[in-house]
Amino acid sequence: MIAQPPRHRLYVDAPLAAGLDVRLDGAQAHYLRDVMRLGPGAAVALFNGRDGEWLATLDTLGKAGAQAVAQTLLRPQGDEDGPWLLFAPLKKEATDYLVEKAVELGCGALLPVMTRRTQSQKVRTDRLRAQVIGAAEQCERLTLPAVFEPRPLAKVLEDWPAERRLFVLAERRDALPAARAFAGARALKAALLVGPEGGLDDKDLDALLALPSSTPVGLGPRILRAETAAAAALAVWQAVAGDWETR
Amino acid sequence: MIAQPPRHRLYVDAPLAAGLDVRLDGAQAHYLRDVMRLGPGAAVALFNGRDGEWLATLDTLGKAGAQAVAQTLLRPQGDEDGPWLLFAPLKKEATDYLVEKAVELGCGALLPVMTRRTQSQKVRTDRLRAQVIGAAEQCERLTLPAVFEPRPLAKVLEDWPAERRLFVLAERRDALPAARAFAGARALKAALLVGPEGGLDDKDLDALLALPSSTPVGLGPRILRAETAAAAALAVWQAVAGDWETR
Repeated sequence: MIAQPPRHRLYVDAPLAAGLDVRLDGAQAHYLRDVMRLGPGAAVALFNGRDGEWLATLDTLGKAGAQAVAQTLLRPQGDEDGPWLLFAPLKKEATDYLVEKAVELGCGALLPVMTRRTQSQKVRTDRLRAQVIGAAEQCERLTLPAVFEPRPLAKVLEDWPAERRLFVLAERRDALPAARAFAGARALKAALLVGPEGGLDDKDLDALLALPSSTPVGLGPRILRAETAAAAALAVWQAVAGDWETR
Repeated sequence: MIAQPPRHRLYVDAPLAAGLDVRLDGAQAHYLRDVMRLGPGAAVALFNGRDGEWLATLDTLGKAGAQAVAQTLLRPQGDEDGPWLLFAPLKKEATDYLVEKAVELGCGALLPVMTRRTQSQKVRTDRLRAQVIGAAEQCERLTLPAVFEPRPLAKVLEDWPAERRLFVLAERRDALPAARAFAGARALKAALLVGPEGGLDDKDLDALLALPSSTPVGLGPRILRAETAAAAALAVWQAVAGDWETR
């Protein structure tokens, strides 16, 4: 038994269970050895999004990678069924910010959506996924939100799962204030959609609101940047309908 | 009467009233002329944080500055009495982000506080103020949050106004969930305090919580970066106790 979990926390893809050898890649080995100055025998925490968080001890540490042995379960795997976040890809820095904050705020999945006004047509989902892992390591999540390939809005709407409520963050007179909209959806599967910089095109907004399971939601009287709207909506969701109440 | 407010919105220090000449500085003149390609006669919106938002027409546009004439009141000045945000200065980018989001989310004043673990000792309040203005121009605020000079935490606590409730965003077992804490404070003057990266030192936290008007508040089970915590707390405040309900 240990009193304190280890300071260093890494995501791995491999299965985790007592006694299992786990391979760490070259970047992780570099971080542990050259940045954190750890050597064989040092303790790290490992998680893979499926088997909980494990105390592991470093075995070998080389240039090409490292080896660790899983020892004790630190935290069992739990659900983290936060809302999906649908977003129109933004400029690089704004997207980076949006992804990082979405992971910290317990987002369940990230879905890049191509809207009429989407500024950036190129979305590198491998890059998004690397950011998701980095943010999850930092914020003590045990799960990784899924990262979907970018899809045109029309296609997303066509295939929308009827049982999932889609909250469209929109500046409209008939939009429900966020706290009221979300509190009424506590038990539902949910998704939040933020538009591109400059807001959703009217045609896109009409198509979104024509979906039987969509609701327009307002985030107050000021104009929020898209990445601010995403973080703000997720925070309000967690506070009134999500997992902030349980602590 | 005009149907649509002008697209370009600038903060000025000068008084605003019908017929008054208003001087714009060199940077503003450059933006309007060289970036936005506006010429004499074009319409802009001006606000100064005191006299509401005014439709103005450009008169002269030169290298050293420009001149506009205020014409019609577009929006009367209102109150925007959002919570103060006390924050430990962070690394440059994180502070930039924190300030921008705080303005968008209706923060009433920005107070840099030197805590035991504050990483950056240098705070350029002139830079903070320029960022506040840029963010306010973008997000359609009519007010500017005040920017205070940095002060040591002990000094801030010594002079704390008893009538203002201080919500300390802290990872503690006895912290109230944010939505519950804020909903109970709807009518109160409030302030939110976020600690430095790595969290508040125990001594600082004890000093904060010894204040009769302070309350520890929790932001859920994940570890939020300081700038995420600031944006998240302000969003939840506005959603449950602030001005998002009124729209």
